[in-house]
Amino acid sequence: MTGFAEGENVTLDLLKKKMAEFAKERDWDQFHSPRNLLLAMVGEVGELSEIFQWKGEVPKGLPDWKEEEKEHLGEELSDVLLYLVRLSDICGVDLGKAALRKVELNAIKYPVSQKQSETTTATNEDIAQLG
Amino acid sequence: MTGFAEGENVTLDLLKKKMAEFAKERDWDQFHSPRNLLLAMVGEVGELSEIFQWKGEVPKGLPDWKEEEKEHLGEELSDVLLYLVRLSDICGVDLGKAALRKVELNAIKYPVSQKQSETTTATNEDIAQLG
Amino acid sequence: MTGFAEGENVTLDLLKKKMAEFAKERDWDQFHSPRNLLLAMVGEVGELSEIFQWKGEVPKGLPDWKEEEKEHLGEELSDVLLYLVRLSDICGVDLGKAALRKVELNAIKYPVSQKQSETTTATNEDIAQLG
Amino acid sequence: MTGFAEGENVTLDLLKKKMAEFAKERDWDQFHSPRNLLLAMVGEVGELSEIFQWKGEVPKGLPDWKEEEKEHLGEELSDVLLYLVRLSDICGVDLGKAALRKVELNAIKYPVSQKQSETTTATNEDIAQLG
Repeated sequence: MTGFAEGENVTLDLLKKKMAEFAKERDWDQFHSPRNLLLAMVGEVGELSEIFQWKGEVPKGLPDWKEEEKEHLGEELSDVLLYLVRLSDICGVDLGKAALRKVELNAIKYPVSQKQSETTTATNEDIAQLG
Repeated sequence: MTGFAEGENVTLDLLKKKMAEFAKERDWDQFHSPRNLLLAMVGEVGELSEIFQWKGEVPKGLPDWKEEEKEHLGEELSDVLLYLVRLSDICGVDLGKAALRKVELNAIKYPVSQKQSETTTATNEDIAQLG
Repeated sequence: MTGFAEGENVTLDLLKKKMAEFAKERDWDQFHSPRNLLLAMVGEVGELSEIFQWKGEVPKGLPDWKEEEKEHLGEELSDVLLYLVRLSDICGVDLGKAALRKVELNAIKYPVSQKQSETTTATNEDIAQLG
Repeated sequence: MTGFAEGENVTLDLLKKKMAEFAKERDWDQFHSPRNLLLAMVGEVGELSEIFQWKGEVPKGLPDWKEEEKEHLGEELSDVLLYLVRLSDICGVDLGKAALRKVELNAIKYPVSQKQSETTTATNEDIAQLG
């Protein structure tokens, strides 16, 4: 991956193009219908969940995980992302644009009140409705 | 969203920073443990699936969908993405880097053979193992 | 499995007892917390989805599936069920009782009108809210 | 629900028949294709996950949950079950039979060794492969 030593420049658009090219080169466009891709993504969410399933609560930063476990985690997170990007593309949704818009909608829905910044007043119900 | 008229420049890193800022401003970091975020993401995958659940097969580009349906779809796709980005951040995974690496691994696992580019020889089993 | 030549007598209670016994014999109760079991179930839902992911629309009865594919499907459906039963047990929920009650609630929510029985008037939105 | 004061007699077959009757009365068979039902189930798994998403680790028996929360949980667990039962029926899978068979297969795969019954030797990897 020339020119991308760091991940910080990776755009959703770049991943979209890579996935489209990948599918075209392998003649896999025929398999990439919206619901096929959605189910493929659900499959990857399952694999991601398997990594966490028997671990009980896990602290931020995963301090006790082996390097190979973290690498595996990165792969499963990526699989979910790649199918999500591909699904969006096939549906004609500009995922980057939609995501920025959703962040803005969330900011309107959950304003930063003076009160909230001082004490935690967000309830489970509020947060549960974030999405 | 000043400066981002188009979605094509949206990096995963930008979304990561926006999510981190959003949580901090609302004192929600306390809720953002890896498994909490994972389950929140599964919840959003459920909402995304609900959009497609009674539709039967759906053609690429969603030609028959109303504008408001497409907008709703964009929101649910975004919700999955935003929790995925946040989960990766909390786990200490550079999602952009990991995704590029995974694309490369997939390219090695599924080489573009002369044969494959002429006729479709990929089986369901091959593709199922893409992830 | 003596005494159960047919599956029609299988109660949720029987499966609950078998799962409890299974875990106890292997000293696995320690792993069976609610969220561990929930994530394990999500993992199995993922495996179930993988079976259907590249198939496009699939007709009822799966007429074109090989016997081994159907057997595999039965295993994945069972895995979801077994973790669901176990999760309910660990949460102290009587799943059989809850399921019967839910069917009754659904019947109240979606009454069988004269009109509905003659022509299809249920909209996607109605059905989407079944659960 | 006359005749079922207790949930312990509830068979999978009974739920299957109730779901089939429910769909027929409302002319909903037309919507109940395998992949539609699968996605509907994924939607319910999402709603189930939302109940647990911001709670951190939850102890067995849910000692601190309000009665209404437990009731809601019972409804979501039931929704997953009812779609799973319906999906199995539409696919022509005898779920009760398949589940008993799967318990037997698991027992063969994970024998109760003397060692395991005394000390916990099951690894995460072993358990992860239970399904």
